[in-house]
Amino acid sequence: MAVYTEVSDEALRGYLGEYDLGELVAFRGIAEGVENSNFSLRTTTGDFVLTLYEKRVDPAELPWFLGLMDHLVQGGLACPAPVRARDGQALRALAGRPAAICSFLPGVWPRRVRPEHLAPLGEALARLHLAGADFPPTRANALGPAGWAPLLERCRADGDAVQPGLIGLLDGALAAILAAWPAGLPRGHIHADLFPDNVFFLGPAADPHVSGIIDFYFACTDLLAYDLAVCLNAWCFEPDYSFNVTRARAMLRAYAAVRPLGAAERDALPVLCQGAALRFLLTRLFDWVNTPPGAMVTRKDPLEYLRKLRFFLSADSAEAVGG
Amino acid sequence: MAVYTEVSDEALRGYLGEYDLGELVAFRGIAEGVENSNFSLRTTTGDFVLTLYEKRVDPAELPWFLGLMDHLVQGGLACPAPVRARDGQALRALAGRPAAICSFLPGVWPRRVRPEHLAPLGEALARLHLAGADFPPTRANALGPAGWAPLLERCRADGDAVQPGLIGLLDGALAAILAAWPAGLPRGHIHADLFPDNVFFLGPAADPHVSGIIDFYFACTDLLAYDLAVCLNAWCFEPDYSFNVTRARAMLRAYAAVRPLGAAERDALPVLCQGAALRFLLTRLFDWVNTPPGAMVTRKDPLEYLRKLRFFLSADSAEAVGG
Repeated sequence: MAVYTEVSDEALRGYLGEYDLGELVAFRGIAEGVENSNFSLRTTTGDFVLTLYEKRVDPAELPWFLGLMDHLVQGGLACPAPVRARDGQALRALAGRPAAICSFLPGVWPRRVRPEHLAPLGEALARLHLAGADFPPTRANALGPAGWAPLLERCRADGDAVQPGLIGLLDGALAAILAAWPAGLPRGHIHADLFPDNVFFLGPAADPHVSGIIDFYFACTDLLAYDLAVCLNAWCFEPDYSFNVTRARAMLRAYAAVRPLGAAERDALPVLCQGAALRFLLTRLFDWVNTPPGAMVTRKDPLEYLRKLRFFLSADSAEAVGG
Repeated sequence: MAVYTEVSDEALRGYLGEYDLGELVAFRGIAEGVENSNFSLRTTTGDFVLTLYEKRVDPAELPWFLGLMDHLVQGGLACPAPVRARDGQALRALAGRPAAICSFLPGVWPRRVRPEHLAPLGEALARLHLAGADFPPTRANALGPAGWAPLLERCRADGDAVQPGLIGLLDGALAAILAAWPAGLPRGHIHADLFPDNVFFLGPAADPHVSGIIDFYFACTDLLAYDLAVCLNAWCFEPDYSFNVTRARAMLRAYAAVRPLGAAERDALPVLCQGAALRFLLTRLFDWVNTPPGAMVTRKDPLEYLRKLRFFLSADSAEAVGG
């Protein structure tokens, strides 16, 4: 569920009064998303998404996120375009939260991933990386390799209650992954959270195209190939956790047709995938052990990523992960 | 959160193929609602809401609900119009659930009720009652007076854990309310759940109008004035549980201007309000003691309605509740 903060109609009216968007027509909460409160907003001039940024987002970082989105839209990418109010500012405040209005994107996120989604995904990700190349400001990846050890420390006391021996296993995996972490790979701005619910598709079932990429609030500046590793985790496993190498190959091939992968990037795919699996395992584990029962947040099962991590730890070559 | 069932894009495509609604443009979960899964659906021909009916709704009753909505729309009420597929049927199946597409209604539900909302609410409720008058099929109110004792029984074992003495207090209130329950008042089809999130408004803040009434899945055939009692519970308390009689008067006056209230209906308002408070207290209490911690359903505090019940038990005349 993704409405944590409600907005009174007077407050909404006052907020919309700062924009040249016409009159309010409709306003509904959007179910998708877990970090922020999102509303679909219709005015007499069109459709938009209003986001209230909740406590997990650092307000000081919002100008970077909105700046990147603006830059990517200028570069031709179908991502939410921040809408500026009459004073020229896109980042504002509403109901005590930082808030912004962005353009509405058509399309449907795939509730069930099919092989046909993967080539358009790979191509769109490569275009995202290219379009971001000339955006000068950078943002460190707070959930990158340097963040994993501190995160594991914060799970140490309660982690073994989720599965006996889990913390010891993660200590070993973390040490191995950090020791093998590649240096010198191409860097740039990455999405870092490109799960299926952040990618909209349109078109025929046999030939879908990407109509939108959303939710840039984990975006950062890091190894470009790490974004591929996130997608290999998020898009390429069957419901029974078997790895679908056909999907992986389709994505990597389509990506490389737009932005060729260097040999070092390709060789690093297994360890990058291990790192990405560990990142999602650790954040889910942290949420799992720190979410009080009955809280309105849906906890995601951390052990799903333990299975993915084990698969990637067993992958001894780029080929094994579709490279 | 109101997406319990996800729909794959192939299934959605197949489902839309049964309708003459054009091509799919967008599909997002709607955050509002607690009983069913709701999605906003845009096609090349317009905007709609797709509902998957979850386990609390008896599929055998869906034709009655959809028939009533259809009838109310024909009668000029702004409520969701069920859309028929090419075979003439509005009630279908999707993702293993009964499902229907209805028209999209513009407007914004009031996150914070203001006195200005109450007159339009009363007028719209009276119009709903009049428009329903010539819909012949009936549906018993499963959560009406006959349902309260069985519901209380199912809370008996655990209810006092929520508040010591609660069950004894409710036994006493139930007996008094049932003894005083009015006979012979005008009956008809009622909404029975007309909370603020089920009513959309548009227009200037000082003069809003009702642009839509939604969620008819508690509708039934019962005392018309009971719907007013539900609204007095749902719309007329301040956040500190003090009763705002100005709101109550505005609603009742506007209702009576469209459908005059008989003296017996007016006199019965306090006990009807007590009954409505008890109904929401009991269903919330039942959910509270029967929802496992960590379930995705947001439990609503039953004790909010204990405070409202106490207020209405102390109301010794129609005037005290705004009549």
